[in-house]
Amino acid sequence: MAKLFSFVLSALWLAQLPSSFALWPQPQQLTTGKTPLRLANDFKIMFSDNLKDPPQDLKEAAGRAKEHLHKDRLQALVPDRGASSAGAISGAKHLSSLSLALGYQTKLKSIAEEAVAPLESRVEGYTLTVPGEGGQATLQANSSLGFLRGLTTFEQLWYELQNTTYTLQAPINIVDKPAYPYRGFMLDTARNYFPVSDIKRVLDAMSLVKLNTFHWHVVDSQSFPLIVPGFEEISQKGAYSSAQIYSPDDVKHIVNYAAQRGIDVIPEIDTPGHTSIISKSHPEHIACPEATPWAQFANEPPAGQLRLASSNTTKFTASLLTSAAKMFQSTYFSTGGDEINKKCYDEDGPTRTELSQQGKTFEQALDTFVQENHKALKGVGKTPVVWEEMVLDHPVTLSNDTLVMVWVSSDHVGSVAKKNHKIVHAASDYFYLDCGAGGWVGNNVNGNSWCDPFKTWQKSYSFNPTAGLTPEQSKLVMGGQHLLWTEQSGPSNLDSITWPRAASSAELFWTGPGGDVSKALPRLHDLQFRLVQRGVNAIPLQPMWCALRPGVCDLTA
Amino acid sequence: MAKLFSFVLSALWLAQLPSSFALWPQPQQLTTGKTPLRLANDFKIMFSDNLKDPPQDLKEAAGRAKEHLHKDRLQALVPDRGASSAGAISGAKHLSSLSLALGYQTKLKSIAEEAVAPLESRVEGYTLTVPGEGGQATLQANSSLGFLRGLTTFEQLWYELQNTTYTLQAPINIVDKPAYPYRGFMLDTARNYFPVSDIKRVLDAMSLVKLNTFHWHVVDSQSFPLIVPGFEEISQKGAYSSAQIYSPDDVKHIVNYAAQRGIDVIPEIDTPGHTSIISKSHPEHIACPEATPWAQFANEPPAGQLRLASSNTTKFTASLLTSAAKMFQSTYFSTGGDEINKKCYDEDGPTRTELSQQGKTFEQALDTFVQENHKALKGVGKTPVVWEEMVLDHPVTLSNDTLVMVWVSSDHVGSVAKKNHKIVHAASDYFYLDCGAGGWVGNNVNGNSWCDPFKTWQKSYSFNPTAGLTPEQSKLVMGGQHLLWTEQSGPSNLDSITWPRAASSAELFWTGPGGDVSKALPRLHDLQFRLVQRGVNAIPLQPMWCALRPGVCDLTA
Repeated sequence: MAKLFSFVLSALWLAQLPSSFALWPQPQQLTTGKTPLRLANDFKIMFSDNLKDPPQDLKEAAGRAKEHLHKDRLQALVPDRGASSAGAISGAKHLSSLSLALGYQTKLKSIAEEAVAPLESRVEGYTLTVPGEGGQATLQANSSLGFLRGLTTFEQLWYELQNTTYTLQAPINIVDKPAYPYRGFMLDTARNYFPVSDIKRVLDAMSLVKLNTFHWHVVDSQSFPLIVPGFEEISQKGAYSSAQIYSPDDVKHIVNYAAQRGIDVIPEIDTPGHTSIISKSHPEHIACPEATPWAQFANEPPAGQLRLASSNTTKFTASLLTSAAKMFQSTYFSTGGDEINKKCYDEDGPTRTELSQQGKTFEQALDTFVQENHKALKGVGKTPVVWEEMVLDHPVTLSNDTLVMVWVSSDHVGSVAKKNHKIVHAASDYFYLDCGAGGWVGNNVNGNSWCDPFKTWQKSYSFNPTAGLTPEQSKLVMGGQHLLWTEQSGPSNLDSITWPRAASSAELFWTGPGGDVSKALPRLHDLQFRLVQRGVNAIPLQPMWCALRPGVCDLTA
Repeated sequence: MAKLFSFVLSALWLAQLPSSFALWPQPQQLTTGKTPLRLANDFKIMFSDNLKDPPQDLKEAAGRAKEHLHKDRLQALVPDRGASSAGAISGAKHLSSLSLALGYQTKLKSIAEEAVAPLESRVEGYTLTVPGEGGQATLQANSSLGFLRGLTTFEQLWYELQNTTYTLQAPINIVDKPAYPYRGFMLDTARNYFPVSDIKRVLDAMSLVKLNTFHWHVVDSQSFPLIVPGFEEISQKGAYSSAQIYSPDDVKHIVNYAAQRGIDVIPEIDTPGHTSIISKSHPEHIACPEATPWAQFANEPPAGQLRLASSNTTKFTASLLTSAAKMFQSTYFSTGGDEINKKCYDEDGPTRTELSQQGKTFEQALDTFVQENHKALKGVGKTPVVWEEMVLDHPVTLSNDTLVMVWVSSDHVGSVAKKNHKIVHAASDYFYLDCGAGGWVGNNVNGNSWCDPFKTWQKSYSFNPTAGLTPEQSKLVMGGQHLLWTEQSGPSNLDSITWPRAASSAELFWTGPGGDVSKALPRLHDLQFRLVQRGVNAIPLQPMWCALRPGVCDLTA
C-alpha cells in the first residue's frame, strides 16, 4: 500500500477549482486573490499591543487554532489533492503570524462569559485580513467571541501538501458576523445515553461551524441521567445504570468545555410530561405511571406526568428545576412543556381530587404550575424556554422574554409570532435528524417513522426563517437548530446521523437564508473531510470522485 | 460516576423475561429449560476422540469462541441487567467444557476450504446440547462449517454478571441448519473507499450472524482500488490515492480472514458498464469516457463503458477478469452486467465501426463479449455471477450454473426463474441499505434518493424468497443479501448504516421466512448490544428503556 502513484490530471478539473474557500459557514463578505501563500514553520498567533492582556480562554483558543493548523492536514479537494500545485506552494511567500487586535480599546470578557450572556447581547463579528505578500495576517474584533469565530475561520483557510500548510487564494479579506444570535443543536441523552466524551466531540464539531447553543434535552420519561444536587434519588433510580449518568462534575466539565468554545449549554428538564421515570423515586408526584396501553397516555412509553395540580408536586418541581438550573451557567433554562396528555390526568384520582378541591380546570392548574416553575427559575436568574404547545395549545401565562421553540411544524411559526414571543426554529419538518430511518415502535411492521421522510441537508438549508412573517415579527426570530431525538441513536451513530447535516442550519442561521445547494455542496464536502480529520465521523455526501470535482456530479439539462 | 446504585425492579419485567435465547439467527429447533448454569473458570473447548486431529482453522475458531466468551461481557437485557439473579447464578452448577464431536467418522476439510466450495455442496448444520446439570456440553457436526456455526451459536448463549458467565435457561438443545446456502452482504468499495480493517470488521459481524458470502463490489466507474497483477496501471491511475488501494497481499489477507470465518469472498468486476475509470490507463478500451451530460450516458457519473465490440477490448477484459479471479479462492466471480447504456455505444465511433465491420448488432456483440469473458473465467475454474439485466434485458447466452442477482425489483424474480437461472435475492426494494437518506446528485434540491424510502429491518425481514414461484422454481433460489452502495457511505457510517439491519436478511435466509418482527426485536436488541461489545457500531433500534423490556414498547389495541 506504500507505492507512490502518479496521477493523470485532466486540465478540465484544474480549471474548475472552486473559486471560494471551503469555509463553513460562508462569511458575510469574502474576497480572495490568486496568490499562493504558506504558513511559516514558526507561524505564531499573537496578540497586538492593544490586546496585551487577553482572557485566558482566548489565549487557549488561539493555542487550539494553532494546533488545528498543524493537525488538520487536509489535502485540497481536487483530483490530485494539490500535487500539481507543489511548485507554486514551495515557491510561495510565508505568512509568519496572525495578530489579534481590538477594533477599539475595551476590556474583553472571557469567551466563557460572553458565551452564556443573553442572546441579544452577544457580539460575534470579526474582520480577517491575510495579505498576499505574506508577513502578518490580522484578525480584528471587539469581543472574545468575535476573536474565537475569526480564529475558526482562519483555521479553515488552509490545506496541506507535503507537510506544508498553504492557500492558493491570498490575499484574503473577510468581514463577518452572524445573521441570527441563536444557532443551536439539540441532543436527547435520555432515550439513549451518551458518554461525556461524545458530548465533547459534538461541542468540538459545533464550534467548528460556529454553532453557539447546545440545547441539552438531558432527561425524559425513559431515563434520568442527570444527578441533581438534593435530588440524587431520581437518577439513582432513574438512570439506565450507575455508569450512564452525568454527575455535577461532568456537567461542570461539559459547561466549561462548551463555554470556552463559544457555546452556551441550555439544559431542559421537560415538564409536566415526559417525566415518567421520576415515579421510580417519587411515585407520589407522577400521574399514570407506566399506564397501559401506553399510546393512550403518552406519545411514547412509559406514560407518566407530574401531578401538576398538586401544590406539593409543584414545589418539588420548582425546587428540582432551580437546583438543576444552578448547575449551568446559561441565562436560559427549558421547562419543556410538549405533548401533555390529558387522559393521564383525567384518570388520575389525586389530580381529579386536587382540581375539584381547588375549583380549577386542568388548564388553570397547568397555568399555575408553569408560572410557579418559571417564577422560581427567574429567582435564580434564568429566562425560561418552552416548546410551542405552551403558547399554542394551552392558555399559559408566559413572560415576554420566554424563548419558544417551534417543533411540531414550521407552519406554526406565524401563530407563535402573532403572540409576540421570541422564536427558535426547531421544526420537525426541516430540522429533525431522526426522521425517515424507520420507526422505534416495536411491532411497527411497516417500519415508517412519524416524521418521514428523512430530512436532507438540502431541505434544512432551504428553510426560510422569516417566511410569512411581517418585518416586525421577523425580529422575534432568534435563530434555530437541528435536533437529535435518540430513540434510534446512540454513541454508535451520533456522528453519522448528525454530521454534516447539522452544519446546514449552522450556515443558514449564520450566513442567512437563500443559499444555493449546488454552490454549497463543494464547501460542505470540505467541511466533511475536515470533520473526519478531527475525529468526527461525518458521512460522505457523494462518491469521492464527485467530492474532488465540484459540480461535475450535478444534473445538467 | 462510580457510585453504586440500587435499582427498583418491577416484578412485571421479571415475569416477561424472553422465553428464548437471544440467538440470531434463530435456530431451526431450540428447547430450553429454567436451570441456571455458569461457565467454569477453566472452561475448555475440546475435541472429542473421534476428532483428534481437527483442521488448524477449526482449532483457531474454537480459540476465538473461547475469547468471545471471555470478552463479550454482555449483561442480560432486563432492567436490572441480571442483578436480581445473582443468587441463582452464584449457586449454579458449572459447565466445564464444550466437546466438539463428529456425527460420523470422516476426514474434515478446513473451514477455509469448505467456505469457498460450491454453494450446493456446503454443509453448515450442527447439533448443540448443554446439559442442565453442568459438566460437558456437546457440539456435533459433520463439517468444519457446521462446527463453526455451532460455536457461534454457543457464544450467544451466555450473559455476564459480576465476572460470571451464565445462562438461566439450561438445559439447552439445538438442532440447526440453514434454509438457504447463499447468505450474503455486498459492499461497494469504489464509490468511497474502505480500509482493510473496516472490511475485517464487516466479516467479523457477518460471521456472528452466520452470513457466508461477502460479495465485494470492489471497483466501479469512480475508482479502481484493486491492484490486479499484470494490470497495475489501472489502479495506479484509477485509485483515489496510493493509500486507497487493495494490494494482492491485502486481498489474500481478506480472503483468508473471511474463509476462516466461514465466508466466501465473491469479487465483482462490473462489465461492460461501470468501467469509466479504466479510461485513465486504457483510453483505447473505453467508450464515451466522462461524456457529458453524464445522465445521458450513464446512471451515475463518470460515464464510460468497455468497448465490447472490439476484440482487443474483449481480450483485455477477459484477461483482466481472469487475473483478478485468480486472486480469490471463491468458486464464483461476478462480471456484473447492470445498467448498460446504449447511447454511449451508439455515439462511439470505434464501436460503430466494429459493429459494422463484423456485421453484428449491439446485442450480438454483447453476447460475444459476455461469452468470451465467462469462457475465460471457466478456464480458471470460476462460475459466473451476473446482475439480472444479463437475463432480462439482453439475450445473452449464459451457462445454467450462472448465479443471477435480482436487484432492480423483487417483482423481477419470477422472470429470472422462468429462464431457469439460479437466483440470489438482492432487490433494491427490500435489501438496499443506502435508500432513503437523501440523494447523491449534487444539485438535487429536493434531496430524495432514487430508491426511497429507507428499507427498515422489518421490511427485509418480511421478505418471502419464494413468493410467486412454483415449487420447482423455488429450488432455484440460492438465498440473498443486503447491499451497501456507498455513494453516501464511508468508514464513518459503514457500521451504523449496516448493523443491525443487515442481520435481518441473515436470519431470513438462515432460519427461513415467516418470522414475526415483534418476536424478533428483543433478539435483535441482544445482537445489537453484542455487536457493540465486539466493537461494531450497530445502532440502537429503540430507547434502551424498551430494549430492556421486550414487547413493552409495542403498540397494543
